[in-house]
Amino acid sequence: MTTFDLADPVLRTYAIAAAVMVLKVMGQGWMTVARMMKSGRGLVNPEDLIAGPLNRTPDAGQLDIDDYVDRSRRMHRNDLENIPAFWMAGLLFVLSAPALWLAQVLLYGFVAARAAHFVAYLTKQRHEVRAAFYTIGSLIVIYMALHVLWDVLT
Amino acid sequence: MTTFDLADPVLRTYAIAAAVMVLKVMGQGWMTVARMMKSGRGLVNPEDLIAGPLNRTPDAGQLDIDDYVDRSRRMHRNDLENIPAFWMAGLLFVLSAPALWLAQVLLYGFVAARAAHFVAYLTKQRHEVRAAFYTIGSLIVIYMALHVLWDVLT
Amino acid sequence: MTTFDLADPVLRTYAIAAAVMVLKVMGQGWMTVARMMKSGRGLVNPEDLIAGPLNRTPDAGQLDIDDYVDRSRRMHRNDLENIPAFWMAGLLFVLSAPALWLAQVLLYGFVAARAAHFVAYLTKQRHEVRAAFYTIGSLIVIYMALHVLWDVLT
Repeated sequence: MTTFDLADPVLRTYAIAAAVMVLKVMGQGWMTVARMMKSGRGLVNPEDLIAGPLNRTPDAGQLDIDDYVDRSRRMHRNDLENIPAFWMAGLLFVLSAPALWLAQVLLYGFVAARAAHFVAYLTKQRHEVRAAFYTIGSLIVIYMALHVLWDVLT
Repeated sequence: MTTFDLADPVLRTYAIAAAVMVLKVMGQGWMTVARMMKSGRGLVNPEDLIAGPLNRTPDAGQLDIDDYVDRSRRMHRNDLENIPAFWMAGLLFVLSAPALWLAQVLLYGFVAARAAHFVAYLTKQRHEVRAAFYTIGSLIVIYMALHVLWDVLT
Repeated sequence: MTTFDLADPVLRTYAIAAAVMVLKVMGQGWMTVARMMKSGRGLVNPEDLIAGPLNRTPDAGQLDIDDYVDRSRRMHRNDLENIPAFWMAGLLFVLSAPALWLAQVLLYGFVAARAAHFVAYLTKQRHEVRAAFYTIGSLIVIYMALHVLWDVLT
């Protein structure tokens, strides 16, 4: 039986990793905002061309896709393809009462892999580098889901 | 120690806010469907041009991007960038056993901010209005994640 | 009161359904990777045109939208619009201590509906077929959220 107590070191590990990934996802939204504001480009809504404090000199080209801004959106999409599944798999994994060392390796390992993926994506590293960190994070999530299924079904 | 009991007013607050946001996300999908059906535009799959009950008079232009339909998709994407992180941050926040008033302010505050963001986006309010409500929701999620980290790490 | 114990058959049902959907989401990412590698098309980042083990003969056309690859991305987006809300609604639903048969019908029903949606999308079935399975999954999530609200608010 698992009672959820943040004094439990496994749950604490999960809480730290999950909360850091919350900040990552929300921070990616703010990076997109910052890049839109800095470049004045990469807007997505026609009404964003109304002149105002956020857009002093509007022009129609601001709605064109812009790699500087769109890169942050692509990073965000990649986060959404991976991080909510991590939250779910991690929660179930914690419920299966794993060894602390294993929980730390997997949960902090995911955070580290995504941090490295973020840097690789941001700095436009070649595909192979980005793919390597993506793969590590993805395999951790897949392992945790399989671990849970094994635990529950056997 | 937290035992999950829906009689607990903090957990009850979370359950209400989280369930309402589930309905919000699912409802946004149905708004996209309704707008596609009403306008007959904004389809995304080549096979959707097969004539049938959902598309009686197909033409290739139906696959073009259409602001009426795409607006609902952009609202959906914005939901996905914010709401799953809210679910996760809120759950961890509840585990940290916060004061009921604080839980109510933050959890219901997020729901209210997203409702206002929905209206602002739907009615094409200027960027500054939409951004204000986005910011409130985002800061609530970020605060909850930091609150959890502070609680766990100190 | 609910204590989270994977020996509880309702929680076990949830764990199985949720873990399978984690594998579904992660697997969709790998399908996109596999289709990019197989076709050498549908890349999204300019830096992916650097020659290397993942891209031996780059050309600019690889960045064009390609239905074979983009279909997998659209399937992924559809997953993200539905599955995290399922995880959340299902967790709250389990907290409301439902009857086991109802939990099994809804949670496994969602998994089955999404599996059928996957096949329909992958094999380019007409819109009506895909929409039917989407609708079943969506209504299950909506029902669970309403069930929770009813349980908590009455």
